[in-house]
Amino acid sequence: MKRDRYGAFITFEGPEGSGKSTQIRWLAKALHQRGFSVVSLRDPGSTTLGRRLRQALLHSQQPLTPLQEALLFIGGRVALVKERIIPELRKGKVVLCDRFHDSTLAYQGFGGRMNIAWLDRLGRRAIDELMPDLTLILDVPAEVGLRRLRHVPDRMERYGLAFHRRVRRGFHDLSHQEPHRFVVIDATQPAKIVQEKIRCIVSERLAGYFATLQRSR
Amino acid sequence: MKRDRYGAFITFEGPEGSGKSTQIRWLAKALHQRGFSVVSLRDPGSTTLGRRLRQALLHSQQPLTPLQEALLFIGGRVALVKERIIPELRKGKVVLCDRFHDSTLAYQGFGGRMNIAWLDRLGRRAIDELMPDLTLILDVPAEVGLRRLRHVPDRMERYGLAFHRRVRRGFHDLSHQEPHRFVVIDATQPAKIVQEKIRCIVSERLAGYFATLQRSR
Repeated sequence: MKRDRYGAFITFEGPEGSGKSTQIRWLAKALHQRGFSVVSLRDPGSTTLGRRLRQALLHSQQPLTPLQEALLFIGGRVALVKERIIPELRKGKVVLCDRFHDSTLAYQGFGGRMNIAWLDRLGRRAIDELMPDLTLILDVPAEVGLRRLRHVPDRMERYGLAFHRRVRRGFHDLSHQEPHRFVVIDATQPAKIVQEKIRCIVSERLAGYFATLQRSR
Repeated sequence: MKRDRYGAFITFEGPEGSGKSTQIRWLAKALHQRGFSVVSLRDPGSTTLGRRLRQALLHSQQPLTPLQEALLFIGGRVALVKERIIPELRKGKVVLCDRFHDSTLAYQGFGGRMNIAWLDRLGRRAIDELMPDLTLILDVPAEVGLRRLRHVPDRMERYGLAFHRRVRRGFHDLSHQEPHRFVVIDATQPAKIVQEKIRCIVSERLAGYFATLQRSR
């Protein structure tokens, strides 16, 4: 499933309060203005199954085990990949996605102290290895992210500071394992500066993909 | 978690149309009349998360992969075990459950041609090995089960006959692997006869458990 696509698949990762949704909205608008055909998705969410799971997961009254959360997030992600991401990539779209596989590794894996290699295999297998071309990590210290939240924290956000520190270290670890796919951005800077950096990185990558595409035709 | 319980955990398995829900209802009533404290549950369902998943799974417009189904069913089952089954067993209840882990093996595993050993490990690990004391398989040929359905078939029921034959063979295979836990009942017989057999088997087992309990006190 991986290579019969010609769009670009870009995911955004990072702790709560790192500004992902604002940055994605600004980037989508900027790309659209430059003539790109863009679609913004979120994981979990963006499918009927995903929305139901998102509600069930984020607002569950009962504590869930990390394995249980992982199973449900991965299960929902399969629908997102099949119903939204693959069709959009086949149309040649630039797909921006708020969270993806790496969040499961960071939160349930590193945060929830699961076996990372096992979880990584399970998650990739479920989505037939459809991994992003580029993953931007909006990096802020756990304290800063939690302080920035303006709404009532949901279940995931209520985990303690130690949990969120493990999540952040998890994102760093992942970025070291796949330096070509990940770019870590210091998201403690003013949002406009962060956006400039994102646009620069994304433009560079998109230019590279389209050059490859031209050569292969 | 397994041994600090003193109730009895009995699950009912079998293809669609095998009469599970009627048999469970009759058995619950009979046990109740004989003074037992009984609770009837269903998997998926019987928890808020489970009900949401059940709706999402059974009425999904999009085809789901066997792995995706397995992840969601197992993920929902964890809630059922933690929120309902364990608390009821701790109160000493007889817990009757319509489907459980073995359905995941039969449908997604055998039906969906997944690796059974891998799926079995994953499913048992998720529920901390809380397996039933007794599992009754209501056995009917796939054709008979499908013919008996009186409602509009849901997604799972619409799979073809070959799928449902693999499911049935799956249940048989499982029963051979754990002959002490499983009892296979010919459910093509009249429902009253099936119920008599079920009562007989369940009474025998319950008598055995309570005898053991007396000795251990």
